[in-house]
Amino acid sequence: MARKLYELVGAEDDRRFSPYCWRSRMALAHKGLEAESVPWHFTDTDAIKFSGQGRVPVLVDGDKTVFDSWNIATYLEDRYPDKPSLFDGLTSRAMAGFFNSWVDTTVHPALIGVILMDVYDHLGAADQAYFRKSREERFGTTLEAFVADGPAKLAAFRQALQPARITLAKQPYLGGVGPQYVDYILFGAFQWARAISPQHLLEADDPIVPWRARLLDAHGGLAGNAKGYPV
Amino acid sequence: MARKLYELVGAEDDRRFSPYCWRSRMALAHKGLEAESVPWHFTDTDAIKFSGQGRVPVLVDGDKTVFDSWNIATYLEDRYPDKPSLFDGLTSRAMAGFFNSWVDTTVHPALIGVILMDVYDHLGAADQAYFRKSREERFGTTLEAFVADGPAKLAAFRQALQPARITLAKQPYLGGVGPQYVDYILFGAFQWARAISPQHLLEADDPIVPWRARLLDAHGGLAGNAKGYPV
Repeated sequence: MARKLYELVGAEDDRRFSPYCWRSRMALAHKGLEAESVPWHFTDTDAIKFSGQGRVPVLVDGDKTVFDSWNIATYLEDRYPDKPSLFDGLTSRAMAGFFNSWVDTTVHPALIGVILMDVYDHLGAADQAYFRKSREERFGTTLEAFVADGPAKLAAFRQALQPARITLAKQPYLGGVGPQYVDYILFGAFQWARAISPQHLLEADDPIVPWRARLLDAHGGLAGNAKGYPV
Repeated sequence: MARKLYELVGAEDDRRFSPYCWRSRMALAHKGLEAESVPWHFTDTDAIKFSGQGRVPVLVDGDKTVFDSWNIATYLEDRYPDKPSLFDGLTSRAMAGFFNSWVDTTVHPALIGVILMDVYDHLGAADQAYFRKSREERFGTTLEAFVADGPAKLAAFRQALQPARITLAKQPYLGGVGPQYVDYILFGAFQWARAISPQHLLEADDPIVPWRARLLDAHGGLAGNAKGYPV
């Protein structure tokens, strides 16, 4: 296949846990585009050297290489304008840029406090060493100290989701009546957790739960059929 | 004039400081619609009793009465479809609903910690008594205790704006190339502060500053010409 998506995996090659890779995978499915999945580990630096940087997702589409999930989404939208739109226009595309930043700066930092050790536990030995060193440098503390007070961190994660919760109590998707890229941006966080964490992130009556269920079922159950824990 | 907007004011009738009223005022201007401003104080409960509730903004448009800033925005969009769009489509309208909740649950609570006493200081005596009683009940502490540690609260407000900051470093408006209702939602917070607070909320090099300046100038300087403090 001429189209490939490099996706972060754990010790098991089918346990895909990158929220950013899931954004791209869902975006490809939304567009109805197939792409071979190339499993990639944190320490496989050489394998994506051709992209000129060191992180996934990396999309190879024929002779085109695109990295960074946002760049991949806008590339797909512009390259395949006749396929279902990821944004439904330039205004909502601009607003999706805000939403992307909101998830990256608010939801992900809150979630990592909850699932950090679950990520670690699902990595192979080389990736564990890389992960521990890089994250302990970033956070300025040990992994174990970073996840202390788990119940408070879970509560903070749930609180961070409040504007999404209010919205999803009123409408089926963040993008309105159907899923849009903005939905995949947030959904990536849940798919990240689902792949590697047995923790239940949401209370049963949370309006986010049925939205997550719809996205697990979307595009032929692409996300829900991926290896992970019951949510 | 057959169209009226009831707008919250302080002791001075031209000091309009409600973020929600500013959303509606900017939305009206965006649509090119005039509306007489009816100054309203916290304790003028009888004046809007006809609306069936007790808060502003209240829009009276001919024989139609609409309250709640979000309802007013969607009413204007649907009632005046041939005027410039506030949302530019249903997807971005759905996403503006999320943004509305984000500002209400994140930005406003952070800002009130900074400007609470400035609000109080600009109210008349009757409104001061109402404001102190209702807010002290809501916050479970005195006004003065609530605003303790002002520098930390200002830092938290700036931090809360981070996803908007990242977005506005890349594009002139939250809605993209021109102002949309989503811009007015956030701008209302700054116009709230500007009306009653001499504090400088943003650092000079903040990417939000030029965006705020553009909105102060928008629609003939409607917001920038309103009574307030230098920003």
